[in-house]
Amino acid sequence: MFQTVTKTLLVSSSSLVYRSICQSLRHYCNQSSTKLRVSEALAGAELGKNVRVQGWVRSVRPQKKNIFLHVNDGSSLQSLQVVGGAELSDPLLTFGSAVEVTGTLRKSPHPQQPVELGADQIHVVGECNSVDFPFKIKERHSLEYIRQLPHLRCRTNVFSSLLRVRSEATTAVHSYFKSNGFLQIHTPTITSNDCEGAGELFQVEPSGPDFEEEVNFFSVPAFLTVSGQLHLEVMSGSFSRVYTFGPTFRAENSQSRRHLAEFFMVEAEISFTQSLEDLTKVMEGMFRSTTEHVLAHCADDVGLFHKHVTPGHRDRVDAMLKQSFPVITYSEAIDILNRSSENFTFPTDWGCDLKTEHEKYLVKHCGDVPVFITDYPYDLKPFYARDNQDQPKHTAAAVDLLVPGVGELCGGSLREERLSLLKARLEDVGLEEIYSWYLDLRRFGSVPHGGFGMGFERYLQCILGVNNIKDVIPFPRFSHSCLL
Amino acid sequence: MFQTVTKTLLVSSSSLVYRSICQSLRHYCNQSSTKLRVSEALAGAELGKNVRVQGWVRSVRPQKKNIFLHVNDGSSLQSLQVVGGAELSDPLLTFGSAVEVTGTLRKSPHPQQPVELGADQIHVVGECNSVDFPFKIKERHSLEYIRQLPHLRCRTNVFSSLLRVRSEATTAVHSYFKSNGFLQIHTPTITSNDCEGAGELFQVEPSGPDFEEEVNFFSVPAFLTVSGQLHLEVMSGSFSRVYTFGPTFRAENSQSRRHLAEFFMVEAEISFTQSLEDLTKVMEGMFRSTTEHVLAHCADDVGLFHKHVTPGHRDRVDAMLKQSFPVITYSEAIDILNRSSENFTFPTDWGCDLKTEHEKYLVKHCGDVPVFITDYPYDLKPFYARDNQDQPKHTAAAVDLLVPGVGELCGGSLREERLSLLKARLEDVGLEEIYSWYLDLRRFGSVPHGGFGMGFERYLQCILGVNNIKDVIPFPRFSHSCLL
Repeated sequence: MFQTVTKTLLVSSSSLVYRSICQSLRHYCNQSSTKLRVSEALAGAELGKNVRVQGWVRSVRPQKKNIFLHVNDGSSLQSLQVVGGAELSDPLLTFGSAVEVTGTLRKSPHPQQPVELGADQIHVVGECNSVDFPFKIKERHSLEYIRQLPHLRCRTNVFSSLLRVRSEATTAVHSYFKSNGFLQIHTPTITSNDCEGAGELFQVEPSGPDFEEEVNFFSVPAFLTVSGQLHLEVMSGSFSRVYTFGPTFRAENSQSRRHLAEFFMVEAEISFTQSLEDLTKVMEGMFRSTTEHVLAHCADDVGLFHKHVTPGHRDRVDAMLKQSFPVITYSEAIDILNRSSENFTFPTDWGCDLKTEHEKYLVKHCGDVPVFITDYPYDLKPFYARDNQDQPKHTAAAVDLLVPGVGELCGGSLREERLSLLKARLEDVGLEEIYSWYLDLRRFGSVPHGGFGMGFERYLQCILGVNNIKDVIPFPRFSHSCLL
Repeated sequence: MFQTVTKTLLVSSSSLVYRSICQSLRHYCNQSSTKLRVSEALAGAELGKNVRVQGWVRSVRPQKKNIFLHVNDGSSLQSLQVVGGAELSDPLLTFGSAVEVTGTLRKSPHPQQPVELGADQIHVVGECNSVDFPFKIKERHSLEYIRQLPHLRCRTNVFSSLLRVRSEATTAVHSYFKSNGFLQIHTPTITSNDCEGAGELFQVEPSGPDFEEEVNFFSVPAFLTVSGQLHLEVMSGSFSRVYTFGPTFRAENSQSRRHLAEFFMVEAEISFTQSLEDLTKVMEGMFRSTTEHVLAHCADDVGLFHKHVTPGHRDRVDAMLKQSFPVITYSEAIDILNRSSENFTFPTDWGCDLKTEHEKYLVKHCGDVPVFITDYPYDLKPFYARDNQDQPKHTAAAVDLLVPGVGELCGGSLREERLSLLKARLEDVGLEEIYSWYLDLRRFGSVPHGGFGMGFERYLQCILGVNNIKDVIPFPRFSHSCLL
């Protein structure tokens, strides 16, 4: 009975009075309709039934006899087509407005969509003034433009797709580690360590007048973590396999397309290793399984990037997954660079750090697929890297994974588990006292172990073909920018 | 053949020479034995087969004819019993040392364990000097004692159990949200917002001489997040259900058993809400499903806490799960407090903040189960809480979940989605300009929404019965303490 009343009212008016009556009737009507997400509706749930869908209008097309809407609630890239009689038209039904639609879910006569919602009621929940709204209907806004609007950019197709991919990739990373027997550890964000022994740290102190500047809140200087490695190494003395996945920080004064001041890192540590292969297997396994999961579970969202952002990128990703990643030593890499006819800006002598131009060349040389570089010069690596004890070219058991378009994606090493060697190296750099707790790990039941870290944003750049790292993180932080 | 050689050698000597030969033979022997985790061995995998297990010695019992070890690799609370001939004895086989054992997995004659490993070889991978090692065999060390050793405490039974529970509870939280259609958002750690409008913030600035003190790295003052709520609200304008799970910070000068400077928080935001019940349903659902998951998947680990740390706590947890959580309004809570015969230190007039003593009483009054308190005085709540527009007792649609032993576990509210009301309140407190982006969310397609946060460490305290919050996080940070 109430539904008939509503329908009659809908026909007779779209005035304020109608909206108020409609609202008061809404509660009753809602009782008889099933609330559905757009993705559920598109999958054909409740076909032929009375349903209720809530979301935001992505397009409006009023015609003589009908009004057509596309409603999206973030559950999928595809929106649900809503068809209503012309009497449901409302000047407040604009691009960006929020609506609740009640009606019957039915098969669509159009081949582009499986179903459509034949609307009995369209209620505008929240208005959106098209003149002020910075996104315009049917326009494809550039990534640069939407980046300026961090509070609204999730309302675009491209950024909501990115966020769905990011969420799904996160799930896939956790699930890879869980199914491979790794324990998740929440390594700390605030730390009194300086893992790399290098600068570029953010320091942390309470703000406000309650705290005297002279005394540290923590009694010691405290920093934002640059890596959870040392904390994971603690854990690898009790659990054979551990990982962490969280925010990591660098106070780098850089506006580069590959650097952020705050980024997410996946780090793992494995005990009882025998060689670098124990690490490369996990790195490759994680890359493969996460990518396959994302391609399978976010086909539409990934497709948007591969179609509109970097056309042709899908072929590149498929090529990456085709065969196992090649492994070359640093020494072989140097030979390859020296044999090439390329004119490099930076030197390529044995002992030099590999620069972006070198990494790019090596990846191309290996067939534009991810490539492992192993056994770097001992002197290039931090104190914890395991000494290979070779000569005359003295190397450490370290490994990087370079990927097309991005460069360094992962970095790892076996860790020096031999107390005497580690102690000597720490003494050399005058850090023996600060790291006495770290030496303890080698004093008590030390085991050969190693680990690696992967920049999660770079991973997303790599598989989606996104040029700028700022476009793959919800709220990018970099020098001179901390919006919201 | 090699195995015979090894056995002969094992019988003849336990000298350094033996160990060196043994090591070189190890590679060959490893080829023929399957590497197993302790948990897999205990589950009876590869029964009757030649296997290899790596881990740390939790007990050593040399007898006349045999040596008995318990080896643990962190995959379960229970260790694997290893039985070897007396000839496998080695002075380096001490509590805490790391070993690799090869042998045959067989049914155990003892009822306490399903299987045991009949050792052919025991190789000490890493020594552990029992005199220096701060944990002693067969001693049950107090939580206070092991807390002083953050780099080693994961090697105790109790703390490795805690870490397994924590990892599993994390998995359960993610899985609850995923299966309920929530998208995971990585909200930022560094922010230029001050969500609560209150102090107790950590400020972030680069350390070192490269950066001039006068100019902010981010061009604006930047802080560690106290809540991802506002960032989630951004997302709730495009996705109907979002959540975040990560580190959160308070520069509270507190040594309390319930506070940390860095803690983990689960936060969720839900669009198209109709009432607070839309939030309490999710809060209760998450609590229930996570707890049931942990009880089912970490029975041994949880059992250790319920048996040795807080005897009898299991009954309390079971009682919590028995029926739905009671809901009372703040006004009802005040009535209950005023009707009680208890002598409270703090006032209980309508409008007062509920203190720990009040929360404790209310939880007891409701039967020592989790209890929701709703509709707090409007003036007690931050600017974003939704105005109930009631009088004379003016309230906001806010809700807290109080739990036995811990007090406030969750806090949430419906958010003020009505532009005019929100704008007026922000104008009142002079924050209209700073939060103009937040007002934008109400200008463009605003929807009724709400959310909540749960302190993850407090949750673990609640289900395990752990008194001090420092004992449920891998590396606790609080005033005057930032170890490692």
